[in-house]
Amino acid sequence: MISQEMLKLGTSKSVIRELFSYGQQRAQKVGFENVLDFSLGNPSVPAPKEVQDAIIDIVKNNDPVFYHGYSSSQGHDGCRKAIADNLNKRFSTEYSLDDLFMTCGAAASLNIVFKALTVSAADEVIVLAPYFPEYKVFIEGQGSKMKLVSSCNDMRLNLDGIKEAVNENTKALLINSPNNPSGVVYTKDEIKELTNYLKEMEKKLGHTIYLISDEPYRELVFTGEPVSFIPNFYDDTIVCYSWSKSLSLPGERIGYVLVNNKCSENETVMSAVGGAARVLGYVCAPTLFQLVIEKCVNVEPNLEVYKKNREILYNGLTKMGYNVAKPDGAFYLFIEAPNGNSEEFSEKAKAYDVLVVPGTGFGSKTHMRLSYCVDTEKCEKALPVFEKLMKEFK
Amino acid sequence: MISQEMLKLGTSKSVIRELFSYGQQRAQKVGFENVLDFSLGNPSVPAPKEVQDAIIDIVKNNDPVFYHGYSSSQGHDGCRKAIADNLNKRFSTEYSLDDLFMTCGAAASLNIVFKALTVSAADEVIVLAPYFPEYKVFIEGQGSKMKLVSSCNDMRLNLDGIKEAVNENTKALLINSPNNPSGVVYTKDEIKELTNYLKEMEKKLGHTIYLISDEPYRELVFTGEPVSFIPNFYDDTIVCYSWSKSLSLPGERIGYVLVNNKCSENETVMSAVGGAARVLGYVCAPTLFQLVIEKCVNVEPNLEVYKKNREILYNGLTKMGYNVAKPDGAFYLFIEAPNGNSEEFSEKAKAYDVLVVPGTGFGSKTHMRLSYCVDTEKCEKALPVFEKLMKEFK
Repeated sequence: MISQEMLKLGTSKSVIRELFSYGQQRAQKVGFENVLDFSLGNPSVPAPKEVQDAIIDIVKNNDPVFYHGYSSSQGHDGCRKAIADNLNKRFSTEYSLDDLFMTCGAAASLNIVFKALTVSAADEVIVLAPYFPEYKVFIEGQGSKMKLVSSCNDMRLNLDGIKEAVNENTKALLINSPNNPSGVVYTKDEIKELTNYLKEMEKKLGHTIYLISDEPYRELVFTGEPVSFIPNFYDDTIVCYSWSKSLSLPGERIGYVLVNNKCSENETVMSAVGGAARVLGYVCAPTLFQLVIEKCVNVEPNLEVYKKNREILYNGLTKMGYNVAKPDGAFYLFIEAPNGNSEEFSEKAKAYDVLVVPGTGFGSKTHMRLSYCVDTEKCEKALPVFEKLMKEFK
Repeated sequence: MISQEMLKLGTSKSVIRELFSYGQQRAQKVGFENVLDFSLGNPSVPAPKEVQDAIIDIVKNNDPVFYHGYSSSQGHDGCRKAIADNLNKRFSTEYSLDDLFMTCGAAASLNIVFKALTVSAADEVIVLAPYFPEYKVFIEGQGSKMKLVSSCNDMRLNLDGIKEAVNENTKALLINSPNNPSGVVYTKDEIKELTNYLKEMEKKLGHTIYLISDEPYRELVFTGEPVSFIPNFYDDTIVCYSWSKSLSLPGERIGYVLVNNKCSENETVMSAVGGAARVLGYVCAPTLFQLVIEKCVNVEPNLEVYKKNREILYNGLTKMGYNVAKPDGAFYLFIEAPNGNSEEFSEKAKAYDVLVVPGTGFGSKTHMRLSYCVDTEKCEKALPVFEKLMKEFK
């Protein structure tokens, strides 16, 4: 009498969550400081003080009937205006509040967009592996097919693979740069090549190919240069954003969908986004946090801890001979297991209380993900274990 | 290239929202105090002071990494435990935290449950008219059919109609007591008769019939007696709850799904609920408000204003000869138009700056909904207009 598909999704084991639970149990036995848990992508840097100040200011100085009340389904005007202003200033765009639809985080944004775009079960969304495992759940859940394209060996954009994958059923290509799980940031040249090719194919196929840019890590870049803003390269771009990582608000479920104002029939797309949000039960994005975002949209994330951790681990691991994708953003390292078997490596590491996630679920059996959004001390303590393991595996 | 179905849902006009927008425009011309807008179900009573205190206490005295961090998808243990304790105390139940799944409000709860239960397109969910119009969007959006049963003339439960509607495809029956839009609260006897019949049909048909109880208005009852708690009458009950109305938090999107612990295969149903939440993109319910609910779950709503408004309007209107469903709960009156044409009445009322919603979208052309979650003064000012209209229509 219930959906077996939903049951399967509800009971299927998440390797990440299982590792995390194991780590919690171990911590009770051997002490929290002795479990070097790199499994979760939960920001370890607290939300900036401005967020706390904004919450208290709103709650103390405004009318609860307003700040806890419904907003329109698209979101409060002031919040969307502030976001548009911020993007326009940073990326020389010309957005208005009408180009933005506030959501309950990036997972909501993605589902809403897939639902809005899916016309038939033949529709394909191209995803570049390694990838965030929930993409598959979301794309298939909203009725399209996921078509995987492996990245190059160094986790860079594989344009040849993409060229093989595009066909008349291609509805969209999903990119995620900075990438979870690899930390790779696509260069301007890579984006240019990709978008030039997509433009060409739009003409050839005679229909729109949407570029869906999942950008929760957009502000977490360590190269000193800002990440390339995709809508400036490709008109038919839809951005899915969240403040989960940039302002360390993952539990508050606050983000947006941006339908690029140069996207063909952008107003129609936005209407379908509204319809999809409605049919999925998203009445409006949490309103107190819409007002918080209005006040904090220009606050920059504190990257110091992540920068330090990244340097310690990347330098340390490569020096030992580990092959690690170049981690220019996000807070992940994607490390090749010395024998090419990430599940075996992860099991061995567990014996030393070092928890890293085998890459199988991310679409790569050879690599494992290490989340370095943890205390710096744990990064330092992990290095000797990795050294030992390298010797064991050699 | 986009879903025409989503486009239609995104562009279809909402009578309620249009009336509200009209009211906002009129208010700018003639003054807010002169527009008697009874269109929206947005609580006019502010969230209790305890909510404000809880927010400030959490933000000032706790670690943002915790209170803004992800919770498990089911929700924080402490929050769910507090809700279970509250229910157990009030309704003599024996729930544990495992029976509860925290959600982004009742709309999310309903969609998650419909998604979890839908097995085939032949599945039917019985809905009792008049009904909240989004039910149709949610049920059909998740793949089942909505089967409407009209209420009796006085908006009471129509058991004969239900008996005609139940068949081998009946997956669930959805009830909403106190009811939006009628304000009707089903009596203990009505609930008993209904649930006895459903039990009989479960045996006869040889499969579960779920009773989905949508309860955002559970605490808004004016009879002095608590509303009958449905799971105590029927094992296969799933409750969808939200604090939107009881704590005046509609914008914060916080609620739950309760799978009754006596429901057949309740653990399996809960797993499917988890799978459905996942596939719809609900990562977790907003975490700051999970902690607020943990602190405020025993706070009772302030009903004084609603009580007063209800009395003024119900007594005034019935005295004038209006036929009004007995409004024992929620904050709505469902009023029969004197000539049986609610659209015409609503138009005429608009000319006097009185905004009431014609019942067509709720499944009744003869009645209109009046939301009395407004300042009491507006209720008093509206009575002479209703008197005039009664004379015009007679």
